[in-house]
Amino acid sequence: MMDMEKTNKLGFETVSLDDDASALVIIDQTRLPNEQKILRLTTQKEIWDAIYLLQVRGAPAIGVAAAYGIYLAAKEIDTTDYNAFAKAFDKAREYLNSSRPTAVNLSWALARMGKIVEAGQGTSVAEIKKRLMAEARAIQAEDIEMCRKIGEHGLSLLKPGMGLLTHCNAGQLATSRYGTATAPMYLGHERGYGFRIFCDETRPLLQGARLTAYELSAAGMDVTLLCDGMAASAMRNGWVDAVFTGADRVAANGDAANKIGTFPLAIAAKRFGIPFYICAPSSTVDLDTLTGKDIKIEQRPAEEVTTMWYKVRMAPDNIKVFNPAFDVTDADLITAIITEKGVHYPPFSESLKKA
Amino acid sequence: MMDMEKTNKLGFETVSLDDDASALVIIDQTRLPNEQKILRLTTQKEIWDAIYLLQVRGAPAIGVAAAYGIYLAAKEIDTTDYNAFAKAFDKAREYLNSSRPTAVNLSWALARMGKIVEAGQGTSVAEIKKRLMAEARAIQAEDIEMCRKIGEHGLSLLKPGMGLLTHCNAGQLATSRYGTATAPMYLGHERGYGFRIFCDETRPLLQGARLTAYELSAAGMDVTLLCDGMAASAMRNGWVDAVFTGADRVAANGDAANKIGTFPLAIAAKRFGIPFYICAPSSTVDLDTLTGKDIKIEQRPAEEVTTMWYKVRMAPDNIKVFNPAFDVTDADLITAIITEKGVHYPPFSESLKKA
Repeated sequence: MMDMEKTNKLGFETVSLDDDASALVIIDQTRLPNEQKILRLTTQKEIWDAIYLLQVRGAPAIGVAAAYGIYLAAKEIDTTDYNAFAKAFDKAREYLNSSRPTAVNLSWALARMGKIVEAGQGTSVAEIKKRLMAEARAIQAEDIEMCRKIGEHGLSLLKPGMGLLTHCNAGQLATSRYGTATAPMYLGHERGYGFRIFCDETRPLLQGARLTAYELSAAGMDVTLLCDGMAASAMRNGWVDAVFTGADRVAANGDAANKIGTFPLAIAAKRFGIPFYICAPSSTVDLDTLTGKDIKIEQRPAEEVTTMWYKVRMAPDNIKVFNPAFDVTDADLITAIITEKGVHYPPFSESLKKA
Repeated sequence: MMDMEKTNKLGFETVSLDDDASALVIIDQTRLPNEQKILRLTTQKEIWDAIYLLQVRGAPAIGVAAAYGIYLAAKEIDTTDYNAFAKAFDKAREYLNSSRPTAVNLSWALARMGKIVEAGQGTSVAEIKKRLMAEARAIQAEDIEMCRKIGEHGLSLLKPGMGLLTHCNAGQLATSRYGTATAPMYLGHERGYGFRIFCDETRPLLQGARLTAYELSAAGMDVTLLCDGMAASAMRNGWVDAVFTGADRVAANGDAANKIGTFPLAIAAKRFGIPFYICAPSSTVDLDTLTGKDIKIEQRPAEEVTTMWYKVRMAPDNIKVFNPAFDVTDADLITAIITEKGVHYPPFSESLKKA
């Protein structure tokens, strides 16, 4: 069961530094939704494992975990000599960086922490350790602030009692607080908006069922889970006033790549005249990618569709499987793109460039 | 493994009478797709169990199984006295009818067989038994002919090499041969059309993955399985030239109720200008149902979404679940409705009435 002392009013914190700055505290996402286990990680090996095993996941959350992780490693380096400290710090940083080499936010956060050590030459090791803690806290605070701003901009478009539909997990579990697509939901919930939330289960990996439905109901929201092919029926029933999803990459013209299943949701929303909003950090907008056609779609293993999560294989052996990780939602289906900088409306080629 | 002697050129027969008319032969659908087990059923209890346990399923297939089942029961009635025979026949019929009381085709087929016995008064019991076998074979032949005609009408719209997408199982496994939505695929396959078939897995019960992908690949077709939310991406890739689905009920204006997930597929097909065809027996068209709004949508248990097929529960406990069995595809999204009587185009209120 969830350790209630470790939860905040949003239900839990995805990643945080313990009150006495002695441990990285995370919720073990590999055990969700059946078990809410809070982990207190203190050793480098524990933190490495947590990132490697996806106990903490989501680009912003990994960045924050890495920042706190390298701070905790630095704190344990038992020397007052700068050079010895810097050498040990680099070794710890390399080790932590190897936990998930393709995670951009991991290396980004570790590089930013490294700059504190470099700039600290001539300062006492004790002072550098203090600055490292401050920098890690700043990384988390900036992430929270970015999500909070997305939430405020998104919430400005909503009214109490609305029905909001989301897909996959662009939630608090992927960030340190609020999430991106879920940020307007969390802020509205804090202010008594009484939203009714609809979560697509999101095949094949079920992030909507396992993670989004979990975190929003843990926060006390009114959550209804549905299969991806049922969203259009929920729209027809008049239950959905707006759709909010995240994005992995937004092209200069507003085309947005996000988890597979987002695109048909946007097509259905258009038929019913339901606003469709993309929520993402402005760093997700890539002006060098002109349109969605330039976004390469990763193909994932067939077993995710045919076997994963099931006791037995649920499809015949001798068939091909189409399992794209993402799809591209055409800009003409997107009502607005919401970043920490504001609500960007079409024509996106102008509004995104300006932002 | 599949008993190859029992398979036909389409891979297998869903339901048939054994060559010496001594057994009902079915493929056990509860073991698909992992095991292809052919059952030879001879006793009333075995046949009752097969229908009750869904070893045979799909309205037309159940009707044919019931017809052969009651013939086999009648054959075993050891009397030459008409009244004794008729009494024993009615008892067997009541018993078989109790295997799945809500299945309309079950009671329809048994009633039709009962009329043979009624009309046989004054004839020898041996002659009645012969007529019962002929009637059961006629029920199957009519089902096959109905599906074949749907297939011919559907195939007339297609060209070799096309990519065809389908949802759920409106296949041979639900009928005695060809299926409805799959009938153009089977006929085209027999004639070397070389179709590329795309099967939606069809959450939550995965009939597309378990049954349709199985039966079409068993017949030797080129089959690609995909999650329901991936169909729009397959369309964008230019792989889909037409969509074929079945229907549970078609309203007078052409609105069609079918397995949940059909409606968003039709919306996506419209965006890409891909023809969307409904294939169904003309008995599915209900002129007394004016529009789709008059079709009541059954809600199914939450556990089908949250737990079924999985080793562990894949969603939190304290959430609501929306799990409609069907959705309604608006007539404006349907290119044509294909019945055994022909290809019916909009305006459906006229073309369906005429047919």
